[in-house]
Amino acid sequence: MPTNNQLPVNKDLFAFVNSQIVPVSEAYLHISDLAIQRGYGIFDFFKVNNEHAYFLDDYLKRFDNSAAQMQLNIPLAPEALKTVIRELIAKNNLVESGIKMILTGGYSADGYQPGTPNLIITQQPFSLPTQAQYNTGIKIITHEYVRELPTAKTINYTIGIRLIQRIKDSLAEDVLYHQEGIVSEFPRCNFFIVKQDNTVVTPLNNVLLGITRKNVLHLAKEKYKAVEGPVTLTDIFAAKEAFLTSTTKRILPIVQIDDKNIGTGKPGAVTLNLLADLIALEEKDWVGKQVAE
Amino acid sequence: MPTNNQLPVNKDLFAFVNSQIVPVSEAYLHISDLAIQRGYGIFDFFKVNNEHAYFLDDYLKRFDNSAAQMQLNIPLAPEALKTVIRELIAKNNLVESGIKMILTGGYSADGYQPGTPNLIITQQPFSLPTQAQYNTGIKIITHEYVRELPTAKTINYTIGIRLIQRIKDSLAEDVLYHQEGIVSEFPRCNFFIVKQDNTVVTPLNNVLLGITRKNVLHLAKEKYKAVEGPVTLTDIFAAKEAFLTSTTKRILPIVQIDDKNIGTGKPGAVTLNLLADLIALEEKDWVGKQVAE
Repeated sequence: MPTNNQLPVNKDLFAFVNSQIVPVSEAYLHISDLAIQRGYGIFDFFKVNNEHAYFLDDYLKRFDNSAAQMQLNIPLAPEALKTVIRELIAKNNLVESGIKMILTGGYSADGYQPGTPNLIITQQPFSLPTQAQYNTGIKIITHEYVRELPTAKTINYTIGIRLIQRIKDSLAEDVLYHQEGIVSEFPRCNFFIVKQDNTVVTPLNNVLLGITRKNVLHLAKEKYKAVEGPVTLTDIFAAKEAFLTSTTKRILPIVQIDDKNIGTGKPGAVTLNLLADLIALEEKDWVGKQVAE
Repeated sequence: MPTNNQLPVNKDLFAFVNSQIVPVSEAYLHISDLAIQRGYGIFDFFKVNNEHAYFLDDYLKRFDNSAAQMQLNIPLAPEALKTVIRELIAKNNLVESGIKMILTGGYSADGYQPGTPNLIITQQPFSLPTQAQYNTGIKIITHEYVRELPTAKTINYTIGIRLIQRIKDSLAEDVLYHQEGIVSEFPRCNFFIVKQDNTVVTPLNNVLLGITRKNVLHLAKEKYKAVEGPVTLTDIFAAKEAFLTSTTKRILPIVQIDDKNIGTGKPGAVTLNLLADLIALEEKDWVGKQVAE
């Protein structure tokens, strides 16, 4: 391979690149790919326990939707894609893992016009947040920004990655985007607040519609009032609780934003209640599929 | 190589990938690269005639500036980079060509944190616009958008590439970005108007500072009044002439915008005068370097 930069890969794992499953250490794309030339592509990511992919149909539907928004054709039909995913899971044989599907603009003759999309599927061991993070909650900062195509899961994280250092310097864990004080999402997570009357609110505009967000909204509606709608920075400071949701983090309590405490400055009862319900829902999805398969 | 998608490359050409010059058909990046994972990278592009790279120091300076804005270290010192460029030019032995340098976020262990940047340099034959395009001028459309980091030449062209089909459907050649009617730039070119009093104006804010833009401003100042400042859509419709500038297109007259004529609807005298001056300036740069080398 024409590179002297070390590969940060587990040599025992396999990846799918277009038509083949290959050792991940041999998974390459030619430099004419439009992701390399123009950052053009989409992806999605879901959690796997042994052989079970959680909420797979939801993730595949979103992947499909992102591809359509970017005018990219997924080279495999849904059933063929599921077959490849199952083969990869069987071959890698991991306990807790995440699977990432990336679809790029393909090999481009002129470095600008899309070609036939390249599909990559990788699987990596995966760890949930630490118990300490769940117990004490996290600190976040804010940044004024709206993603270019908020409803598509594009690979463009230019702004998010540039902010990594500022997050570290602030001893924070993540950065919440807003526009003129109206908040939207984190680079890779959705955002919720719990109002003083226990109403659960999550932004609707300028956000990627997370699968965990959808599940948490569903769970919240069973016990509380839950709405999708505008959330301002002022709303956050007046809120009782706040938390983020994501595939890899489930529900993570947020206790501080830009050095100000939210509520009591400790993880709240509604947040922890929803986290317990989400874990139960994941169990149910897992058990349901074991019976069905 | 683990792919069945055909490579759109000239098998006789060579590319530089990190430490090596290799046949371009063997120039690959591992899928853990942050350009593929997160669209994170920068690039630059300059024109070459035989062994001469036009205005090379200007392009290298801009590449350096883009890298700094994206917190990426160029793995080669300026002189070493020039040596590699010279080696590549000698090996490919083309008459008229363009050289593209791409610097990515490197191989990332977790698909999010940058690694050691990967540097790619490619060279391809290159053709100027047709004489017909210079003679008749082009039609453009408009779109409301500002690039995320306008002063850095990042690889993020998500919006530009999504607009390719709309440009074609409109029988246009390019799309001009504006925000609330204040225009900035094209995806890959700068924009100029010539007012009724022959003042040449180009937007200053939210633009990539093109090298051809800089050269044209310099040339315009020798004959006309030339300023950098706000240009609105209304200004364009009141203008006598309009044109775009870029490394690959030099100066291209614009005669129609969103189906409305600009000026007489034909390439204007100031535009064509500046084009002649630009060609002469390129000659001078070429001759100057032949003497110096």
